[in-house]
Amino acid sequence: MKKSLSQKVYLELDLPNGSDTIGDKDRIVRALITEFGHVRFSMEALIKYYKVLRESNWQITISLIWTGEYWELVRIEKGNTTQKHYGYAVDLGSTTVFMQLIDLNTGRIVAEDSVFNNQIAYGEDILSRIFYVKGKEERLQEIKKCTIDSIRTLMGKLEKDTGVSSTDCDIMVLGGNTTMVHFLLGIDPWFIFHTPYTPSFNHFGFLSSELFNLPFSGLLYAFPSVANYLGGDIVSGILASGMTDKEEMALYIDIGTNGEMVLGNQGFLLTIAGAAGPALEGGISKHGMQAKPGAVDTVKIQNNEMILTTIGHEKPLGICGSGIVDLIAEMLLEGWIDFSGRFNEGKSERVVKREGDWAVVYAWEHESGSREELLFTEKDMTMYLDTKAAANTMVQILLENSGVETSKVERVYMAGAFGKYLNLESAITIGMYPDLPRDRFIRTGNGSLQGAYTLLMNRELLKKVEEIYASMEYLQLEEAADFLTKMYAAKFLPHTDLNLYPTVKENLLKRKNYKDRI
Amino acid sequence: MKKSLSQKVYLELDLPNGSDTIGDKDRIVRALITEFGHVRFSMEALIKYYKVLRESNWQITISLIWTGEYWELVRIEKGNTTQKHYGYAVDLGSTTVFMQLIDLNTGRIVAEDSVFNNQIAYGEDILSRIFYVKGKEERLQEIKKCTIDSIRTLMGKLEKDTGVSSTDCDIMVLGGNTTMVHFLLGIDPWFIFHTPYTPSFNHFGFLSSELFNLPFSGLLYAFPSVANYLGGDIVSGILASGMTDKEEMALYIDIGTNGEMVLGNQGFLLTIAGAAGPALEGGISKHGMQAKPGAVDTVKIQNNEMILTTIGHEKPLGICGSGIVDLIAEMLLEGWIDFSGRFNEGKSERVVKREGDWAVVYAWEHESGSREELLFTEKDMTMYLDTKAAANTMVQILLENSGVETSKVERVYMAGAFGKYLNLESAITIGMYPDLPRDRFIRTGNGSLQGAYTLLMNRELLKKVEEIYASMEYLQLEEAADFLTKMYAAKFLPHTDLNLYPTVKENLLKRKNYKDRI
Repeated sequence: MKKSLSQKVYLELDLPNGSDTIGDKDRIVRALITEFGHVRFSMEALIKYYKVLRESNWQITISLIWTGEYWELVRIEKGNTTQKHYGYAVDLGSTTVFMQLIDLNTGRIVAEDSVFNNQIAYGEDILSRIFYVKGKEERLQEIKKCTIDSIRTLMGKLEKDTGVSSTDCDIMVLGGNTTMVHFLLGIDPWFIFHTPYTPSFNHFGFLSSELFNLPFSGLLYAFPSVANYLGGDIVSGILASGMTDKEEMALYIDIGTNGEMVLGNQGFLLTIAGAAGPALEGGISKHGMQAKPGAVDTVKIQNNEMILTTIGHEKPLGICGSGIVDLIAEMLLEGWIDFSGRFNEGKSERVVKREGDWAVVYAWEHESGSREELLFTEKDMTMYLDTKAAANTMVQILLENSGVETSKVERVYMAGAFGKYLNLESAITIGMYPDLPRDRFIRTGNGSLQGAYTLLMNRELLKKVEEIYASMEYLQLEEAADFLTKMYAAKFLPHTDLNLYPTVKENLLKRKNYKDRI
Repeated sequence: MKKSLSQKVYLELDLPNGSDTIGDKDRIVRALITEFGHVRFSMEALIKYYKVLRESNWQITISLIWTGEYWELVRIEKGNTTQKHYGYAVDLGSTTVFMQLIDLNTGRIVAEDSVFNNQIAYGEDILSRIFYVKGKEERLQEIKKCTIDSIRTLMGKLEKDTGVSSTDCDIMVLGGNTTMVHFLLGIDPWFIFHTPYTPSFNHFGFLSSELFNLPFSGLLYAFPSVANYLGGDIVSGILASGMTDKEEMALYIDIGTNGEMVLGNQGFLLTIAGAAGPALEGGISKHGMQAKPGAVDTVKIQNNEMILTTIGHEKPLGICGSGIVDLIAEMLLEGWIDFSGRFNEGKSERVVKREGDWAVVYAWEHESGSREELLFTEKDMTMYLDTKAAANTMVQILLENSGVETSKVERVYMAGAFGKYLNLESAITIGMYPDLPRDRFIRTGNGSLQGAYTLLMNRELLKKVEEIYASMEYLQLEEAADFLTKMYAAKFLPHTDLNLYPTVKENLLKRKNYKDRI
């Protein structure tokens, strides 16, 4: 495992003597030149570590980081500490921040954890946060600080859990969307969301941990951002998927607050992205919630009865994204809703009218003796169909623009928490994903985090990251031709053109009571 | 004058648009690539200046600095400000700090000034300062701060004198000895003065002004230090002299608190250095003083009478280095002292015994009616002869080690304030400089400051600086063979071997009263 981005080297240096009075810094650079070329050793690092040299009689361990062009010396310790060599992989999500502590000598994930992004205090959705800071330097610094605090919190948790001090870490690799990395640097992301949607920077590169006041002595690398909605988190995910190493035509789908899709293989990468809205994260439906204990996560309807499971087998408190996809799919198959998502009156006693709107009572909350209805309403449905229509449209546009037929897609990577937990059958049933053989689908989990890990353990992939970055041809959803027409057609369940969904058609037929509908 | 280290470029950038959404930073780098290659544009600079881009509708002036390997973007201003383009040349002396404000568009020295180095508060000589900070981080930071304050003071003075704001400056080039640049960075220079005399670093390079809290947005470059007593000030001086561009054999002599000598031409550079002591700066003799108003700066003895001049034609308050050289030379020629520097009793009523020691009363201080004697004592003489012996020995060792005969030295550069003001005849008379045709001597003035100016106005010389640095072969005075024997022989006036000083011999003969002594 000598290929990690960071490397520790134990040196027993020749002591200075009358015939060799070269300066301390140059002495170290000289000792490394054969194996590492001309190592960059900043004056800031020298100021920090020069005292260690004589205190340790020139027996030192240095930490080097490969930046793609040169090795940078980031730390000097007394004696031989090569056994303690750690780094962080981070996914800086707009809702959740994930972190892994990695033993860089072995590649072992020592521990991992996640926290909500503190930015949520300034708005659940990114746009609220952007409006909050717009043109106000002080608020921008607030957001910067709270972003960093989320990372610090995770570092503290992992240190507590493992006993591995953050000061034994040299490197952090981070995947984050374009706005997140702007916030991380305290740069106003306003123009990312304004036509023509330009970020302040594409390449984050390797930056000193001191710029972020993070409690480790080393560098922080973040993946480059291609465009406004196509951030380093996706570049990282594509790296982790390995799709650019293969001939097979693959589709990478990450739907969360935003939707990002990539179609391609070793020959090309066509990407599209757009706001998907927070519908899938459960943040918008009347009794929706994030995927945590008490959230309804699966729904079945059998013999007109609803069968639910909840996360942690607790009493239901609300419904999360994967539960919603199931709910809509099952209601469609059972005819509780029609192809446009409208509730069919009288199909079930659970389909009710509340405050003038149709809704389905998917559960009752038992709390303090009361029995509150948990509802999924028509309004929720509309929001949801918008999101799923966007996802569907994005895939269509990608396929059309590259002349690839749906059936030729040999692999679908379902990234993100949503892709990890949802019921694939249900997602296809509602037309969110294309109707392809199920074995072509792979749940990748947190692609951004995995890409960070992957790069951390193989520095040669820095080149690959740049290749991915450079080859990503980017389409803006809003600027694609026929965008609105396609969106409209895709709002139906699963789609106005049911022939695009042969297995869904088959399933509808199986549930006899709906034969007449097709 | 387009060759200066710093360059300003006015850009009218293509505005971002739907088909060109590259990030702001990459947009600027891209606009520069043809003329400047891949410009380094740090995230720190982006954070500082990204707002300017749209405020100025993408019509901006950028400041670039050539670092020898790449151009670095250090500043972005609104509109076209290329007419305002300034930089600083600095000589960071251990006693005095000199600064020039340069118009980089024309090469004009807009103003120059000097201040005492604030470090003097911690000791007149460098060793006291080094002992003061040894191992004490807090004191080290004190010295660092006061060093920077000296530079800030000068920046403030020049701003006040010229109306050119320090914020219109992009670059500072500084020549300073090894200890000074260590102090400037807050690095303990203790080991520079301990066998085997190794500095913490040789190359200072280009560092951000922010590291020094200096009020300009750009980079500070300091010349590299070859060894403990052979600092960037000498490398700078050698650059300014141009001696490495010529075939003629040249000797560069800088005597101040330390003595540094360089012998060579375009083929080689042999250097030697050692502590000269503060004798030459007038800091040690009983009534010695620095070269300021009231200091005796020339001395003649005619008809056994002493004729003095003082700086500013003021009443005498003490004697400075050039005055001392004259005094000793004249007393030698007139026989008031013998070849070993001992006072000859009875040669003049000015030769007196005070507190058990012989001394010469070179003047009387008139103050408040009293009439205090201004003395140059036997003890002062001993100190002085040590210094001049060191200077003489260093030259001898250089010549011997390179197999060059004294007469083959075609050019002698006398650098520094001492070299600028002393009487060359007197200096040769006492054996401080070799007895060569007088037209071979050139007073260079402040070589360190001139080298800084020279480099500032011609970035191509960065390569030359590295060549000078790399070709300097360094001898430690204390480690040279026969060092003590040579020193002893050189303590005589002008030297034990009078044949080395034919013109001095001639002058002694001219003053008839001393015929008998030769």
